[in-house]
Amino acid sequence: MENYLTSLITETPFQGRQLAITLARKSIAEIQTDPETRKKLRSDYATDTQQLIASAQIIALEFQTIAAANDYWRK
Amino acid sequence: MENYLTSLITETPFQGRQLAITLARKSIAEIQTDPETRKKLRSDYATDTQQLIASAQIIALEFQTIAAANDYWRK
Amino acid sequence: MENYLTSLITETPFQGRQLAITLARKSIAEIQTDPETRKKLRSDYATDTQQLIASAQIIALEFQTIAAANDYWRK
Amino acid sequence: MENYLTSLITETPFQGRQLAITLARKSIAEIQTDPETRKKLRSDYATDTQQLIASAQIIALEFQTIAAANDYWRK
Amino acid sequence: MENYLTSLITETPFQGRQLAITLARKSIAEIQTDPETRKKLRSDYATDTQQLIASAQIIALEFQTIAAANDYWRK
Amino acid sequence: MENYLTSLITETPFQGRQLAITLARKSIAEIQTDPETRKKLRSDYATDTQQLIASAQIIALEFQTIAAANDYWRK
Repeated sequence: MENYLTSLITETPFQGRQLAITLARKSIAEIQTDPETRKKLRSDYATDTQQLIASAQIIALEFQTIAAANDYWRK
Repeated sequence: MENYLTSLITETPFQGRQLAITLARKSIAEIQTDPETRKKLRSDYATDTQQLIASAQIIALEFQTIAAANDYWRK
Repeated sequence: MENYLTSLITETPFQGRQLAITLARKSIAEIQTDPETRKKLRSDYATDTQQLIASAQIIALEFQTIAAANDYWRK
Repeated sequence: MENYLTSLITETPFQGRQLAITLARKSIAEIQTDPETRKKLRSDYATDTQQLIASAQIIALEFQTIAAANDYWRK
Repeated sequence: MENYLTSLITETPFQGRQLAITLARKSIAEIQTDPETRKKLRSDYATDTQQLIASAQIIALEFQTIAAANDYWRK
Repeated sequence: MENYLTSLITETPFQGRQLAITLARKSIAEIQTDPETRKKLRSDYATDTQQLIASAQIIALEFQTIAAANDYWRK
């Protein structure tokens, strides 16, 4: 798998948020390595509220890490 | 998607709470990009206690990040 | 919605615990805004152990934030 | 409800662990206030592995807070 | 129950990992106190991927605490 | 079980990510010790979105620990 994470540092909080989403997606791709299967599965969880909510939990967890790494973009 | 997060800093804890809710909602919108589908799904999870509780968990996680960013509004 | 969070600082750990419970409840109320529906749903999750446990998880997460804000009431 | 949390500080890590379990139980009691119902529900979740595991998650979360409060009993 | 946690400090990260697993197991034992029932339940969750994954989540949470206590074994 | 964790320190964030995945996998292996059973179970959870998402949550949690250990690779 290509190196999808060269740094946790981002310029803005919004970019940090996008990185959190990328990390969440890449975790799925690390476990289910077949792109075709992932594509099919994706239509499942995007219309299932329980799974949408669980996906949002991962994003929240990844963002905690990224926000701390960036000292919350305070400066 | 528009930039929905320009800063993690809020004036009050209550505003921080509202930001946590916004972030949770935007995560859902990033995964399920069709507004019509989201609207339909929303009526599902708002009446399903299990999903309501899971949604509250995301808000709690996002708020952890925001509260730390604001040094817990201690000053 | 009224401002239900003016400060994360409480005098005692027990008050911090009560605040954690308030925050958990308010998250539910932010998503399901109809009090009548919430009342009805409440009787559901209070007798469903799985949902009781999930609710306790939210309280634990909210309390983590409040306890850190109060420097764990160490002084 | 009586004040079940006068301090997060404990003498030993093991006592901290016991406090984590107490907090988890009290959260349940705050939501389901009827002792008879709780007693009945308890036999349910103690034999359901999924709920046992979810309960252990709450204990882990509460213990994170207590361990930090005690500076991990390092001294 | 015997004192299964005399210290959070371990010599190596791997020992910290083993302690995390011990803590997760002991939480289950605190809730389901009958060893025979636990043994029976164990064969259930060890072959149910959903529960295996949930168990791994507890280990991750306990390890966060232990790793912080040991200052991540940096020195 | 062999020592699969000699250090939490990695050279790059991407290596930290790979370590997070290793830790998640090893937790499963510690609970379900039979490799044949694990192999069979793996095909289950890799095609079940709910379990894929739960697995991604573990990776997020493990990565929080590893990222903190490496001071977020800031230097």
